[in-house]
Amino acid sequence: MRYSKFFGKTRYDAPCDAGSVNARLLTQAGFAEKMAAGIYNILPLGQRVMKKIHGIIREEMDGISGQELLLPSLQPIDLWETTGRTVTMDDVLYRTKGAGDKDFVFGPSHEEAVTPLAAKYVQSYKDLPLSVYQIQTKFRDEPRAKSGLLRGREFGMKDMYSFHTSEEDLDAYYDTVSDAYLRVFSRCGLKAHVIEASGGAFSDKYSHEFSIETPAGEDTIIICDDCGTAQNLEVAEGKVADPSEKEEALKEMERVSMVRGFSVDDNAIAHGVPAYKILKTVVYEVDSGGLLGVVIRGDFSVSGSKLERYLKKSVRPASPETLKKVGLVQGFISPVNVPEEIGISFIADHSIANIRNFVTGANELNFDLINVNQGRDFIIADSVDLVEVSSGFLCTKCNKTLTEIKAVEAGNIFKLGTKFSEAFGLNYTDNEGKVNPVVMGCYGIGTTRLMGTVVEASHDDNGIIWPISVAPYHVHLISLGEDETAEKLYSKLNKSGVEVLFDDRDERAGVKFKDADLIGIPLRVVVSKRTLESDSVEIKSRSEKDGKEVKIKDALKEIENFLK
Amino acid sequence: MRYSKFFGKTRYDAPCDAGSVNARLLTQAGFAEKMAAGIYNILPLGQRVMKKIHGIIREEMDGISGQELLLPSLQPIDLWETTGRTVTMDDVLYRTKGAGDKDFVFGPSHEEAVTPLAAKYVQSYKDLPLSVYQIQTKFRDEPRAKSGLLRGREFGMKDMYSFHTSEEDLDAYYDTVSDAYLRVFSRCGLKAHVIEASGGAFSDKYSHEFSIETPAGEDTIIICDDCGTAQNLEVAEGKVADPSEKEEALKEMERVSMVRGFSVDDNAIAHGVPAYKILKTVVYEVDSGGLLGVVIRGDFSVSGSKLERYLKKSVRPASPETLKKVGLVQGFISPVNVPEEIGISFIADHSIANIRNFVTGANELNFDLINVNQGRDFIIADSVDLVEVSSGFLCTKCNKTLTEIKAVEAGNIFKLGTKFSEAFGLNYTDNEGKVNPVVMGCYGIGTTRLMGTVVEASHDDNGIIWPISVAPYHVHLISLGEDETAEKLYSKLNKSGVEVLFDDRDERAGVKFKDADLIGIPLRVVVSKRTLESDSVEIKSRSEKDGKEVKIKDALKEIENFLK
Repeated sequence: MRYSKFFGKTRYDAPCDAGSVNARLLTQAGFAEKMAAGIYNILPLGQRVMKKIHGIIREEMDGISGQELLLPSLQPIDLWETTGRTVTMDDVLYRTKGAGDKDFVFGPSHEEAVTPLAAKYVQSYKDLPLSVYQIQTKFRDEPRAKSGLLRGREFGMKDMYSFHTSEEDLDAYYDTVSDAYLRVFSRCGLKAHVIEASGGAFSDKYSHEFSIETPAGEDTIIICDDCGTAQNLEVAEGKVADPSEKEEALKEMERVSMVRGFSVDDNAIAHGVPAYKILKTVVYEVDSGGLLGVVIRGDFSVSGSKLERYLKKSVRPASPETLKKVGLVQGFISPVNVPEEIGISFIADHSIANIRNFVTGANELNFDLINVNQGRDFIIADSVDLVEVSSGFLCTKCNKTLTEIKAVEAGNIFKLGTKFSEAFGLNYTDNEGKVNPVVMGCYGIGTTRLMGTVVEASHDDNGIIWPISVAPYHVHLISLGEDETAEKLYSKLNKSGVEVLFDDRDERAGVKFKDADLIGIPLRVVVSKRTLESDSVEIKSRSEKDGKEVKIKDALKEIENFLK
Repeated sequence: MRYSKFFGKTRYDAPCDAGSVNARLLTQAGFAEKMAAGIYNILPLGQRVMKKIHGIIREEMDGISGQELLLPSLQPIDLWETTGRTVTMDDVLYRTKGAGDKDFVFGPSHEEAVTPLAAKYVQSYKDLPLSVYQIQTKFRDEPRAKSGLLRGREFGMKDMYSFHTSEEDLDAYYDTVSDAYLRVFSRCGLKAHVIEASGGAFSDKYSHEFSIETPAGEDTIIICDDCGTAQNLEVAEGKVADPSEKEEALKEMERVSMVRGFSVDDNAIAHGVPAYKILKTVVYEVDSGGLLGVVIRGDFSVSGSKLERYLKKSVRPASPETLKKVGLVQGFISPVNVPEEIGISFIADHSIANIRNFVTGANELNFDLINVNQGRDFIIADSVDLVEVSSGFLCTKCNKTLTEIKAVEAGNIFKLGTKFSEAFGLNYTDNEGKVNPVVMGCYGIGTTRLMGTVVEASHDDNGIIWPISVAPYHVHLISLGEDETAEKLYSKLNKSGVEVLFDDRDERAGVKFKDADLIGIPLRVVVSKRTLESDSVEIKSRSEKDGKEVKIKDALKEIENFLK
């Protein structure tokens, strides 16, 4: 394709609201163009990437017996009322009225379409297992559409639905899909981590997310480089690396006067001890009423998510006003000798068990306690895993060091069980003639989001760096005033099946090089007066700084080798 | 693919509202399944057909420099207010409200999306010409969604938009697209006729339709088999084949008493003359007020469309009450000696010019006039082409006989001119520095409609007959209790790239044959005890009655030859 004729050329005047890296680069380079918040035109360059992504996804889904179909976007609202999702997904539903004053929603997801459809065709255990998928546009009225193509109101998605006779059969297929998803991401040049989801509408037990490492990701995940375990920061488990003080002698507790600031660091410096020797108490107001103090090592943070899961209730940090009202002195709170009338109970994170002779506040301004020890000086109601894991913790599985990384969620898989099949009467008759509800799973990859994720994960200051597998073209051919030779090479490459974007414009070298870097095609081939002096062209990989000169007669072979 | 594992098997209990052939066969055979009126699930068999249709369309559109992109469905309503189509297309728009109480429409068409997008990238004449297309879902709230996949509320469409510096450049590209469209239809096994559109929202001068011959089509078109001219029945032009009576002597007009019925045939029988000798007068009420009598040969009908185009006003046949009120006697109306106070004027179709000595009513019950002649006995205001052409008329271009056929509209092309570019400020600077509006064309093929059209055009009493180019599979392999041999052949065909649907179910021969006929895959291959007696399989084309036995070792070669 000739760049002079191309629709959607580079524009360095990207809209100022393109706050995310993917939106800025995809817009500037001519892959996408925003029509409205969360709604993007996919331009010819972007459409080429999308088709390659679709191709990879189709191969992998077909490879695990997925059958492609296409379900309608426009869905009668009674289907959604049947599952109650007109209420639970109310916020994100686009609704409309059609002929005969009938109400419809535009599908943000397709369980309500596929389940009654399957009920028309599935009768017997012989019809199962079954897996169908589609690549289709979804509509979700996200309250705040930001992050470019990572969170759109109209976006492409591959969604798959599987149908089984038993939980065991679903479990096995669920693992098969998980492996296929990892292959999809890997083929798109992405490193994906499978993590247990942190809950939300579905129980964590039955869903997993696929997180892609990107420096500017909106999620934080904790990974073990050794065994590959990946966890959501909010619920990650990890062991404390510090040495144990279990064998140390318990010193006598003392109350000391100490004028200091309110933070853990202030406390540690004042007493000349490391932060982990500070016994920190974080006070929460529990949704059902009452105060709860969580005791933890001073160098660690309490994970609100873990606490809520433990309590099965919502919590929020107690306000300074609340603390004052009940008589707790901010910065000097401790679980030692707290008057019963305050009505606060205490639990602790496991991490305090290994430390002896803590320093903590004395529940009185400018007074601390030193040599405080659990059991002897204070009692806790329960010892629980409540620590927010970060880099430096150890993997609970293999004891190697964990690392905190930024990531983007690119896919997720759910075990739906019989929730939808029971709602729509999707049953099968087993080999003993008994009628049972079908067990379902569902699996999603955001396809336009995937294009955005590749850009987030693979770019530099000058632009995008496409992996060959999803690059819009293989070769960016640049002619610097040597059109005759360039045309010949262009024709030769095309004939050999190499996908070439040919910058045949009458522009300066600087402009062409800058555009090539921005667009990010894997291989740049330059034909100039200088290269022709040695009957050569310059070939440079987008990801490398320097190119090399290659004789014209060897150029095709060299390019084909690179593409392999 | 094994049919035993296939999602969407044959169902002979097709819903009773599947009134059209395509809906009935596609539903019964498992290609599509209705979710709601005008809204269909496309099942795996149907999706395979759709992907082949998409492949053909992409090749042809890419071949005429079309660049594929994807425009959003969800479009801010202000774009539609800009062009006034919130009013002119009000009936068919699906509307919705999004975050921030903003109004959107779901695109029934994409001029409002593509024109402002083009305005961001087109500045100079150097950026033109340009042609972009997409294959995408459209939403149109058709008041009555019927005809199965021929008229849906949600449907697939390939829409292309072209941008030019001049009308001449558009004209040339318009012809290029027309040729490409004919190739698309031909490759889908369809015979398409290009016809001037009969108007509607756009002037006939600037649009053409592609009509596909099908016995059960909803449109009627007039074609010349010789020169290929095709016309919409409503506006078709044709020459009268009958011999001229111009040389005949004018006999004296007489008023005769005649008790007869009111129809032309009654009149012709009563007088013992052929119907063409009857001078018929059809009276219309014109939209702006007033009555108009159209005089035409008794064996011909007046085309209301032609009359409206001639008058540039709407008309309706005058009611019996109106005729009575002004004193015209139904069944005996003629343009001869009509009292001036009635306030009716007369025009005639050209066809009366060649006939002499007409018979007509005397504007009085049970009295006729014979030997009536134009000019001598009555005067007309104008002689116009107003006849509704039918089989037997002659082509105005080549003088050969015209034929009336039933057809389905499968595509259309429009010259939009500067309507949309002016609305959105899509301008270009010419080589003299002058700013001009861009000249646009648009071109559409309904893709799901195309699947329906193939079925309408190619089926028999037993089911669908797919052309190889868009068939879901090439071979329908049936094992009748000879699974071992069938499995081997299945594997061999798959390895050779032949697309096989393998009916491996434990079903009777009758069931499998009936399903194969219904599904309509081009080649049926049967492995049975009988065929194996001679080391053979039976190979039968779906379009032929009888199959032939082919040695197993020659089967692949025979099949490959057929597929070529």
